[in-house]
Amino acid sequence: MLSFVGLGLYDERSITVRGRDELERADRAFAEQYTSRLAGASLADLESTHGIDIEPRDRAGVEQDPEPVLAAADTGRVAFLVGGDPMVSTTHVDLRLRAHDRGIETRVVHGTTAQTAASSLTGLQNYRFGTATTLPFPETHGGVPDSVLDTVEANRERGRHTLVYLDIHAAEDRLMTGDVATALLADHLDCAGVVVARAGSDDPLVRADELSTLADESFGPPLHLLVIPGDLHPLERDALSAFGDAPAATLDGN
Amino acid sequence: MLSFVGLGLYDERSITVRGRDELERADRAFAEQYTSRLAGASLADLESTHGIDIEPRDRAGVEQDPEPVLAAADTGRVAFLVGGDPMVSTTHVDLRLRAHDRGIETRVVHGTTAQTAASSLTGLQNYRFGTATTLPFPETHGGVPDSVLDTVEANRERGRHTLVYLDIHAAEDRLMTGDVATALLADHLDCAGVVVARAGSDDPLVRADELSTLADESFGPPLHLLVIPGDLHPLERDALSAFGDAPAATLDGN
Repeated sequence: MLSFVGLGLYDERSITVRGRDELERADRAFAEQYTSRLAGASLADLESTHGIDIEPRDRAGVEQDPEPVLAAADTGRVAFLVGGDPMVSTTHVDLRLRAHDRGIETRVVHGTTAQTAASSLTGLQNYRFGTATTLPFPETHGGVPDSVLDTVEANRERGRHTLVYLDIHAAEDRLMTGDVATALLADHLDCAGVVVARAGSDDPLVRADELSTLADESFGPPLHLLVIPGDLHPLERDALSAFGDAPAATLDGN
Repeated sequence: MLSFVGLGLYDERSITVRGRDELERADRAFAEQYTSRLAGASLADLESTHGIDIEPRDRAGVEQDPEPVLAAADTGRVAFLVGGDPMVSTTHVDLRLRAHDRGIETRVVHGTTAQTAASSLTGLQNYRFGTATTLPFPETHGGVPDSVLDTVEANRERGRHTLVYLDIHAAEDRLMTGDVATALLADHLDCAGVVVARAGSDDPLVRADELSTLADESFGPPLHLLVIPGDLHPLERDALSAFGDAPAATLDGN
């Protein structure tokens, strides 16, 4: 049995009770460490909370050498841990298909995600978000890629909000922060932004203002996300004022 | 303190560990029973699992008479329980704003959602979904509303998948099933569909085929969701075959 278990958003308490049960009765547990990491908990924190050894796996250790995980699942219960929801990345769908082809029973235990949290914390309605995008570190693409700006503009034309994931180099523990992201985008867009920090923790922060203003602020420990709002309903406007300290003038354009 | 706690997708074990902790240390707990209900657990199940009395609230009891909830949160810790993620509905944002205006500290504890699960269980990639829609019971709108078909068509033109929520009349425990939904849509659309049943449970079901074929099948206990796929990547096609038993010919049009 191979169970893909979502660790959820932030730390060792972000997992669901079902996920924790699945983890605690596993014979072996692996954690992938390349598509995402919990900002608020280390592997050691997870191990001590759940009382089980967890074997880390990098990209090569899953994609090029899945055999140890599959062999363990042939004969025992294996929990494969992933930050957020476990099947968001294609690499995990691929592993699940390999297990299925081999006759191994698979299970998915869902986790909370940044997508829902960005909406929940800001008060921006989930169904009014368009397609999401990811802002890469500038050196990887020589600045802000056109595809990011195109996605934001296409959403805004239809009145939709855009969730912008900020680049993560998990292997180097390098995470783009909200001030860097808003500074990059302020060169191309003249609009409001909403930074969400530490979604899923006990002290999340939401801050809404002009991109150029946010570029001069700091938002504390990771993880940071950015939302570019589209048209705002009155309730969304009220929520950004109340929970994101947004100046009324900033939201007038939306 | 007023904490909005997401119960997640399916039953009393779908809550996160953080949510469970928040619930168990609350002085009073309320559960809203009008935007969503857990398919796999009753209020009594939640009460016995978490060892706390839970007071149900209908729409009128939250929207027109929020005073008892707010008064309790003025002086003690209150957990306000909602299926899925707690802030998906505007009615809860409104309650949070009322609490904020009154100087009550608020907190959001996220839950797993149908949106993520529909993607995870089917292998359809999250970022390739367009805007979601809800299919109402036919008597409410005299058939399938144009808005539902327009959303599906607009998504398909852009190659995107559509998550179709099926109507729920929570107060009457009346839930639209996958066979009813696919029969309704098969009169208007000639394409594949993917029914997802019991997302978040230990025995979820995924079934992909022509809408007209799905209309003659049954999918067991609730909750049911429907996805209308857009363009399919090879991995998505493989996943629908492996986990949804999709005939190859059905997916050829995608």
